[in-house]
Amino acid sequence: MSDQHVHVAIIGAGTIGLSFAALHLMKDPTCTVTIYDTRTDLQQYVQDKLPGYLVDADQQACVQRLAFASDIDEAVKSATIVQEQGPENLEFKRSLWPEIEKHVPKDALLWSSTSGIAASQQAEGMRDQRRLCVVHPFNPPHIMPLLEVVPSPQTSQDVIDRTLEYWRGRGRAPVVLRKECPGFVANRLAYALFREACSLVAQGVASVEDIDEIVQASMGPRWSVAGPFKSYHAGGGEGGLKSFMDKIGGSIRESWEASEHDVKQYDISMGQAWQKDICQRTEDAYGVINTAERDTKTRKVLAAVGRP
Amino acid sequence: MSDQHVHVAIIGAGTIGLSFAALHLMKDPTCTVTIYDTRTDLQQYVQDKLPGYLVDADQQACVQRLAFASDIDEAVKSATIVQEQGPENLEFKRSLWPEIEKHVPKDALLWSSTSGIAASQQAEGMRDQRRLCVVHPFNPPHIMPLLEVVPSPQTSQDVIDRTLEYWRGRGRAPVVLRKECPGFVANRLAYALFREACSLVAQGVASVEDIDEIVQASMGPRWSVAGPFKSYHAGGGEGGLKSFMDKIGGSIRESWEASEHDVKQYDISMGQAWQKDICQRTEDAYGVINTAERDTKTRKVLAAVGRP
Repeated sequence: MSDQHVHVAIIGAGTIGLSFAALHLMKDPTCTVTIYDTRTDLQQYVQDKLPGYLVDADQQACVQRLAFASDIDEAVKSATIVQEQGPENLEFKRSLWPEIEKHVPKDALLWSSTSGIAASQQAEGMRDQRRLCVVHPFNPPHIMPLLEVVPSPQTSQDVIDRTLEYWRGRGRAPVVLRKECPGFVANRLAYALFREACSLVAQGVASVEDIDEIVQASMGPRWSVAGPFKSYHAGGGEGGLKSFMDKIGGSIRESWEASEHDVKQYDISMGQAWQKDICQRTEDAYGVINTAERDTKTRKVLAAVGRP
Repeated sequence: MSDQHVHVAIIGAGTIGLSFAALHLMKDPTCTVTIYDTRTDLQQYVQDKLPGYLVDADQQACVQRLAFASDIDEAVKSATIVQEQGPENLEFKRSLWPEIEKHVPKDALLWSSTSGIAASQQAEGMRDQRRLCVVHPFNPPHIMPLLEVVPSPQTSQDVIDRTLEYWRGRGRAPVVLRKECPGFVANRLAYALFREACSLVAQGVASVEDIDEIVQASMGPRWSVAGPFKSYHAGGGEGGLKSFMDKIGGSIRESWEASEHDVKQYDISMGQAWQKDICQRTEDAYGVINTAERDTKTRKVLAAVGRP
């Protein structure tokens, strides 16, 4: 793959699609990208929006390697990579892949950016189910290094290997999950913390801003450098995680038990009154957020931990 | 308080005590610190260990402002702040505070660094329960900005205000919790994510190293810049968190439901077989961790987000 010209077909030009298009164009100075979307103003829309994603790049050189397609076969017919971020709808994806399969070169990598629909479900109608793999980004992918590579049990090792090679060659952090599971891993972890955060706000222990400041002044910087296992392993000194668990295990259990109790007490499922209340509090606290400023800061943090 | 000479009595010279001693000495070039501990080699021990905490500081100038005490009354008699990090044992703390109260100047701030024993429980034997407040650090406090200020219902507003003024004046990030609760907030949030991480490792979805890499390449850098509410509020665009919840709420619920199911299936309470397994995997992955390197990197991240 490394000596082959890369041509990426981006299916779906929402924010993830544009962010990925920008990422490919910026990270590989010779690759070409074709964007397919059903919107009628596609070309104008991309020309307006894409420059916002081409950070610190030669925008003109990037845009010159960009093309548009108004139907699927045209979009994928010479692709080496097809990257799908259409509607999060199983029927849509199930009908899309067999259509793509008809027109795409046989060695092309087929990736779905879905945040939850497993490759094994999406691939049901495909002739060769070994080709499909989920490559789930952490938004926005032109900034955040993580890519969760989630193969189905059918996905071939060759597809996984070439997917990893592609992203590692572009300085990204692809991580292969060993099993498909609801929400994959990054969101499962983040949502677990978010649930606890919602519960603590609902109980009046801390405000939305307090929780954000707590995370920003502690776990955020720490976990940029060492994830939870590595952090607690360090916290145990020479005895490592085991020693940490021996010392702190009681507090951890007490926190977990309190969380379970709170979840029951506050009926912390979606769509309840707490949700409306928390959305309102967040709106009151922040209004509309300047994501450009956030992304600039995030890039500084990434540079500080040696990620390009 | 700002025009008063600061004299801090550190009760308990473990890693938290030394880290706080270093923090006070480094952040205030005129303050003095007295360290009390029952260990017989206290002075030698501190002289050996403290320099490791005095990062980028004039170590000699700091050490000159340091004294030692072998009993409590001597340690606290001229203190403006008493900071306790003794054993995490309710009886110990309950007997300590009335003893300190006998000898300490009447305006001194009384802080416990406990990670879980509420001020309202610790203060039961005190004559003036309004004086005590929990100031819980995120380890190590000479590096990490967060301090959870957890008053009891009896703690006076004056004590809270002076505690905030002290830490803000030293460039730290004190956050006042509105209610005492098990584990306070930072650990509750971190342990919720850690529980999910353990569950996903136990299920064979990802390895210990994979989970750490996932967090380091996504949530860590993101949450250094914008905590969970702010992040998801931004993720919803102009519609904010409400719009995010409307779009992604189904996935969040699905993840939460999967988590609940897994917790039952894997009996994710402490002390089970999974715990031993995860400790072993972590040990195999990392051996002994170089915390100096971790702290240097963390300081770069903090500098990148504008925290001194």
